Amino acid sequence: MRNIKLTIQYDGTNYCGWQKQNNAKSIQEEIERSIVKVTGEEVKLIGASRTDRGVHAQGQVANFMTASNIPADKFKYAINSNLPEDIRIKESELVDDSFHSRYDAVGKKYIYLIFNRRILNPLYRNYSYHVPYELNINHMEIAAKYFLGTHDFSAFMAANSSVKSTVRTIYDIELTRNKDLISVSIKGNGFLYNMVRIIIGTLVEVGSGKLSPHSIPQIIESKNRKTAGHTAAAKGLYLEEIYY
Amino acid sequence: MRNIKLTIQYDGTNYCGWQKQNNAKSIQEEIERSIVKVTGEEVKLIGASRTDRGVHAQGQVANFMTASNIPADKFKYAINSNLPEDIRIKESELVDDSFHSRYDAVGKKYIYLIFNRRILNPLYRNYSYHVPYELNINHMEIAAKYFLGTHDFSAFMAANSSVKSTVRTIYDIELTRNKDLISVSIKGNGFLYNMVRIIIGTLVEVGSGKLSPHSIPQIIESKNRKTAGHTAAAKGLYLEEIYY
Repeated sequence: MRNIKLTIQYDGTNYCGWQKQNNAKSIQEEIERSIVKVTGEEVKLIGASRTDRGVHAQGQVANFMTASNIPADKFKYAINSNLPEDIRIKESELVDDSFHSRYDAVGKKYIYLIFNRRILNPLYRNYSYHVPYELNINHMEIAAKYFLGTHDFSAFMAANSSVKSTVRTIYDIELTRNKDLISVSIKGNGFLYNMVRIIIGTLVEVGSGKLSPHSIPQIIESKNRKTAGHTAAAKGLYLEEIYY
Repeated sequence: MRNIKLTIQYDGTNYCGWQKQNNAKSIQEEIERSIVKVTGEEVKLIGASRTDRGVHAQGQVANFMTASNIPADKFKYAINSNLPEDIRIKESELVDDSFHSRYDAVGKKYIYLIFNRRILNPLYRNYSYHVPYELNINHMEIAAKYFLGTHDFSAFMAANSSVKSTVRTIYDIELTRNKDLISVSIKGNGFLYNMVRIIIGTLVEVGSGKLSPHSIPQIIESKNRKTAGHTAAAKGLYLEEIYY
């Protein structure tokens, strides 16, 4: 058996998310179904990140074991030929048998897009979070810096999530504005459930003046989800890269 | 009666194009239907440019006469509230009674996006032309320069089109490459039917080596559609701006 690593891009608009669910179309299921067609084997595809409904990916990673003798780098073409056009395998490669796409990940990078103008550009309707009121980008940048480093991010985790440790390290967070589009790039060793979207919702509330940029340390300190901002829309989120 | 000018953005993916047709959804029809709801009047919406099926717009312009007393700049909100989310009125303003969005246009700007990598990024599947083989961007830039100025563009017009004059002036044409995305910006006093898409198809054939960059003057000179390149896909084309 060989262990094959896939790097995957998708438009999450028409899916319930990465993970298989009853009665809903998932990315995982579409790719597994295509692998079955290609190899004739039932496979279990292990995804690095369980992206939610509507979330997009430029660099999702997954792996599976196969007895097929298709060359590793040809798998991408074979699988793509059986996939819907909103999912594409960008790379396929042979990895060590011990490689596990989720457990071996040492970091992730997300991009989040905010469309900031009163009237939404229809070309961005499924690909950004529409914030129609003015945002103070300088205040958002000041606030963003407080997230850097190692913190207990309990306040930035969806309520009722369960996880062993709520401590995570943010390596980098950068905001750039290009006309109506604000792009936030955030890199860390890992993220709690909904953490990026709650950080973005909090930054938006800083930008609108509802929260002070200097309130972030207190919010982190509180470890209370209610003190942080809202959960920003899934459709603005892109899983950009996974580090190993 | 007042004459109202609209600036319109749309995702052309799900439409047969700008112009009303039987048995197919058009942008014009959707906007007219919304204006009827808002004003209670039957209106005739005059569009500046008849974009084809799948073509997008960032700055389409249209105008209509109305007896309604809705303030001109409020029309955009009223019309938007009755439009599908893939069409948005960006601006609405009062213009002189004599203004005609098509006849008064003195120039247009288009953007064309080429996705140039073997495997298509699924996020661009409806928003770019996928060219999977390598393109020589330097050769494409040399070729592009030959289009500048005033020429008879018969060779770059869809066969069987009829038009009084086939002479047009290109003011500006620029190519930029950003990773896998090649963006072509083209500005002129007017464009023949399919002219931008045939220019792009010809540039792609220059980029692939099928045509020499220096063959453009002869192709123009030939006035023969068969000497130019193919018609590039509609989904890569964006009507960016109309000048008055």
